[in-house]
Amino acid sequence: MAEFTPDPAFIATSAAVGDLALCHVRLQLDARYPWLVLIPRKTGLREIEDLSAADRIALIEETVRAGSAVRAVAEVLGLAVDKLNVGALGNVTPQLHVHVLGRRAGDPAWPGPVWGHSPATPFEGEALDRAIAAAQAALLP
Amino acid sequence: MAEFTPDPAFIATSAAVGDLALCHVRLQLDARYPWLVLIPRKTGLREIEDLSAADRIALIEETVRAGSAVRAVAEVLGLAVDKLNVGALGNVTPQLHVHVLGRRAGDPAWPGPVWGHSPATPFEGEALDRAIAAAQAALLP
Repeated sequence: MAEFTPDPAFIATSAAVGDLALCHVRLQLDARYPWLVLIPRKTGLREIEDLSAADRIALIEETVRAGSAVRAVAEVLGLAVDKLNVGALGNVTPQLHVHVLGRRAGDPAWPGPVWGHSPATPFEGEALDRAIAAAQAALLP
Repeated sequence: MAEFTPDPAFIATSAAVGDLALCHVRLQLDARYPWLVLIPRKTGLREIEDLSAADRIALIEETVRAGSAVRAVAEVLGLAVDKLNVGALGNVTPQLHVHVLGRRAGDPAWPGPVWGHSPATPFEGEALDRAIAAAQAALLP
């Protein structure tokens, strides 16, 4: 069986956080939002229905854990989280992945979706390292 | 305990399909997309994390079933489904709900998200009845 590798599109736009039981977790390189991407570590997946029932349970549990990690990332970045947004779209990058991110009233895309809204704002200084560390502390044993 | 009722925003923009074990299912009133909305039938929910672990399993299973129903709706409407989109946003209507819809290359919002993109196109003639019937046949025993 071919080994799982994240689509190159994720490598360009996000940084590795680590691996959960099912998903490879990445932090989106956009300092405007606390934003994680979960990519199930199996090959050939496009839709949630392509996962086994057991893996679907793992996916929604890891989605909830990612929500907690998003709040932890928001805290170190000094961002409020008024609402979590969860999305599995894949219109541009079809490899199955789930976005979990924190939104705040008045953020650049509010109240619309972030996907495709506007170019990312790069992290400055040590903010990226702090965000990744916060996500790892929240997610990984 | 207060009884579940869908937020009035859903009543204005969608038609009832029926109830699954966890979710009330509605068809979005936009003839451009085969589009269902799942609303867990419990009060006071905003985030997926607000559901019990058992209800989270039900939610992801009903999401997968909704994907099959979306394909059935697409077939009666003569629309292709190149990719399913699944989203739990709630920035405008915070009552917990999950959108499950079918996208096709070149649809009005492609490849961006549908939420907030452009006004809905009403169903004409008997198309709405046929879409609801297809969703019911796919979802309900």
